[in-house]
Amino acid sequence: MPQIQIYDTTLRDGAQGEGVNFSLEDKVLIAHRLDELGFDYVEGGYPLSNPKDAEFFQRIAARPFKHARVCAFGMTRRRGVKPADDIGMKALLDSQAPVITIVGKTSDFHVNEVLSVSLEENLSMIRDTVAYLCGEGREVIYDAEHFFDGWKANSDYAAKTIQAASEAGASIIVMCDTNGGTMPEEVATITREASSKIDKPLGIHTHNDCDLAIANSLAAIDAGASQVQGTINGLGERCGNADLISVVANLALKKQGYQVLHDRGVAHLAELSRYVYEIANMHFRVNQPFVGPSAFAHKGGMHVHAVNKVASSYEHIDPAQVGNERRVLVSELSGRSNIIALATKMNMQDDKDLMDRVLQQVVDLENRGYQFEAAEASFELLVRKLAGTHTPHFELVQYHTSVVSRGGEPVTEATIKLIVNDQLRHEVAEGDGPVNALDAALRKALNGLFPTLNKMHLVDYKVRVINSDAATAASVRVVIESRDESDTWGTVGVHENVIEASWQALVDSIEYKLCKEDT
Amino acid sequence: MPQIQIYDTTLRDGAQGEGVNFSLEDKVLIAHRLDELGFDYVEGGYPLSNPKDAEFFQRIAARPFKHARVCAFGMTRRRGVKPADDIGMKALLDSQAPVITIVGKTSDFHVNEVLSVSLEENLSMIRDTVAYLCGEGREVIYDAEHFFDGWKANSDYAAKTIQAASEAGASIIVMCDTNGGTMPEEVATITREASSKIDKPLGIHTHNDCDLAIANSLAAIDAGASQVQGTINGLGERCGNADLISVVANLALKKQGYQVLHDRGVAHLAELSRYVYEIANMHFRVNQPFVGPSAFAHKGGMHVHAVNKVASSYEHIDPAQVGNERRVLVSELSGRSNIIALATKMNMQDDKDLMDRVLQQVVDLENRGYQFEAAEASFELLVRKLAGTHTPHFELVQYHTSVVSRGGEPVTEATIKLIVNDQLRHEVAEGDGPVNALDAALRKALNGLFPTLNKMHLVDYKVRVINSDAATAASVRVVIESRDESDTWGTVGVHENVIEASWQALVDSIEYKLCKEDT
Repeated sequence: MPQIQIYDTTLRDGAQGEGVNFSLEDKVLIAHRLDELGFDYVEGGYPLSNPKDAEFFQRIAARPFKHARVCAFGMTRRRGVKPADDIGMKALLDSQAPVITIVGKTSDFHVNEVLSVSLEENLSMIRDTVAYLCGEGREVIYDAEHFFDGWKANSDYAAKTIQAASEAGASIIVMCDTNGGTMPEEVATITREASSKIDKPLGIHTHNDCDLAIANSLAAIDAGASQVQGTINGLGERCGNADLISVVANLALKKQGYQVLHDRGVAHLAELSRYVYEIANMHFRVNQPFVGPSAFAHKGGMHVHAVNKVASSYEHIDPAQVGNERRVLVSELSGRSNIIALATKMNMQDDKDLMDRVLQQVVDLENRGYQFEAAEASFELLVRKLAGTHTPHFELVQYHTSVVSRGGEPVTEATIKLIVNDQLRHEVAEGDGPVNALDAALRKALNGLFPTLNKMHLVDYKVRVINSDAATAASVRVVIESRDESDTWGTVGVHENVIEASWQALVDSIEYKLCKEDT
Repeated sequence: MPQIQIYDTTLRDGAQGEGVNFSLEDKVLIAHRLDELGFDYVEGGYPLSNPKDAEFFQRIAARPFKHARVCAFGMTRRRGVKPADDIGMKALLDSQAPVITIVGKTSDFHVNEVLSVSLEENLSMIRDTVAYLCGEGREVIYDAEHFFDGWKANSDYAAKTIQAASEAGASIIVMCDTNGGTMPEEVATITREASSKIDKPLGIHTHNDCDLAIANSLAAIDAGASQVQGTINGLGERCGNADLISVVANLALKKQGYQVLHDRGVAHLAELSRYVYEIANMHFRVNQPFVGPSAFAHKGGMHVHAVNKVASSYEHIDPAQVGNERRVLVSELSGRSNIIALATKMNMQDDKDLMDRVLQQVVDLENRGYQFEAAEASFELLVRKLAGTHTPHFELVQYHTSVVSRGGEPVTEATIKLIVNDQLRHEVAEGDGPVNALDAALRKALNGLFPTLNKMHLVDYKVRVINSDAATAASVRVVIESRDESDTWGTVGVHENVIEASWQALVDSIEYKLCKEDT
């Protein structure tokens, strides 16, 4: 079976994404993880543009990859300059990277309008650059910028540019859909036409501007390309690059007859995706294909019933194949089967009487506006309480929040009186808002007794009015998402009073964390 | 050019998405917006499963669509029951929806393993159901569940199921890739095979489990299908449904020879996408193709330079074609076009200097987290203030809110001190929550002076954390929706403190109502 090369540019093209910033340490960590998982090429950066990138290559040289080849990225030589005199070439060679990826112009329009050189000069810039770097003993990968637009506008000239790179010694010619505007059928056709013009293998580099980056990558592979360039989680400028998570999963598990990652990484894709999100300090995309927490989550009674009956009936693959897992969501759209599936995780499914009481309680609470699908921690506490296995870690005597504004910045204060370990504690704290102040006062009151609480923090807070007709007098649902070093959990509170609803969700979040530590 | 029918199921299949919860009011608002933008079919829900859905159809019957046809969703009749005796059929007919979408089983595996009826009985369930509903004068759309899996497993039987629906009178047969596992080339081939077996048009309904929902929708259209089913922003179970934003944009702007939305909605796709996110109280996907705030944002220096030189060089379409816009320097969600569109309603678009100041102010506010998509009343007040034509009806001296709980029902009180008509008024009121109490105290203080306020009330109240990483200490955006006998209007407030943010939105709502009465 043909081995498809996977070329990762998370650290270079991915870092162009809005809100994406990797430290040097981040980049080194991600690079070695990619190497361990069987990626073929890891592009580390653009040494000319960024000293951090130059340092990255030294770090990799000091601790070389086991399998992957590290790539430095750069552009063709400047006009009218010999490669040997070009600062870009010098930076690339100084990086000591064994592989150098050179981007050059394919489209006569861009050569004239953007680069402003003659079509001939552009060809020599490509030829000279690739030949020089090959002569210095490097493998050269040639990225043909705006390849498809260029081919559609002037295929003869586009062909000349990749022939120049190919004849000068490039190991592979990568067709880049730089602005992400090409349709899959165009990618397939042009890939076939291009492969007839050169005797080097072709690669594909796509962007997701039309929501087609994955389809375009697969179309090029089916048409004969042998390398895919992309980024983990599709990080990248504008709408992002092709998400290598989806590309790899599709090639390995859905398409027939391709090998990727040397059978090492596929079962770790979910872990890799979350690892990169964590390092980049970004939120998961919960519905991300294959690896998102929702990718195999089932809501809606009929489906859950069917899934429990025949797992494969609503799942296109076994979640374990990509290191993900099935989740069953509790929600008003679903029935008993969901509750049992969740309770099964807690090994309580056999207590039929308990199950009846849980179901009854969930129905009552959902009628009052509770939603447990984003609040599994509250659901687990609910089951524990009904099972009589939950002992609260503290007992509230009183809370009080106050917000005063005289037109300028409001002043917010909360007081908490509670009993913990038979001691009465009474604390006060300020905050940016009433819930923040309550959180601060509660932590102050529990302070010292449960040091583990210092390791947890709230990461999201959502408020929703349930029956909108009465607006601020209607019930509100508060969902809080909390995190510690290993987990993320959701809790829910519902009340007419947003403060009381927030308090319920806050207490559940802290009780859940403390129960986690008890067990 | 063939008109491709766009069938929206945001309100039914989209509502299956994790964390998606629409109130009845939300559903009605979204449905009418889709109608205005030229959508052909709007599926409102599953009347049997949910009383809220049944009420939705009454609301639409009371205020019918201009263009779209409203659809109710249901399943084939139960086994061994006459359609006329089936509670599902009754619920569908009671909905009064002119179009009924029936989902039935295509795959012999599911008929045997999940439905547990004979293959023959499944065919009669399909035939009886469709024939009965057609006989009752409804248009019936037939959704063939697990169509592609079924076809691959047993194409003869799969063909029989759609022939049964087709011969019984279904207006169109929709091929559903229920678990989202089919590849585009399979969709194309099977669509051609299926169309040779029936004399009815085909539709396509895909899910994004392989990151290919858009490619699969387009592949089916290119192979002859004439309807696409999907959801706004790709909301939906697991990895979501096909995102109609991307489907429509690709069909209208990227593919050749298709017409969609009767040339009404395409230029408003960005606005529609954000409207649905706001109503659903969900975060934007910043890098969403076509409509995301990052979709035409340019970061890398080389790109920005090139874009400034030749706009089209790094943009596959003109962002204005989908109502989005390029961002090069500063972040700017809603741009000049939106501002002018809104200001035009106020006949202020000709004051260029005012427009500049408004735009600048909006950019500043949006950078601080304000969103005016769902808060046009706040925007109008903003323009009036900058135009110097707004005189506040009252001046706040102080507000104070307090919530005390001793474990039972919390006690909430608010005091307001303000100057109105040169009089100092100081009032106190209780409420179900702090904002409700503030609203009550404010009305008490204005009581007698503005009797018209008795005719307005708040109908919705939404809170959103803007930068979630700091949770309860992050800024929150409050959006309040208010109504009087003739209008509905939205106002917005942003602050670290949810009480202060709510106060801003509350004051805007009341000022807007009072200004309305002045003019």
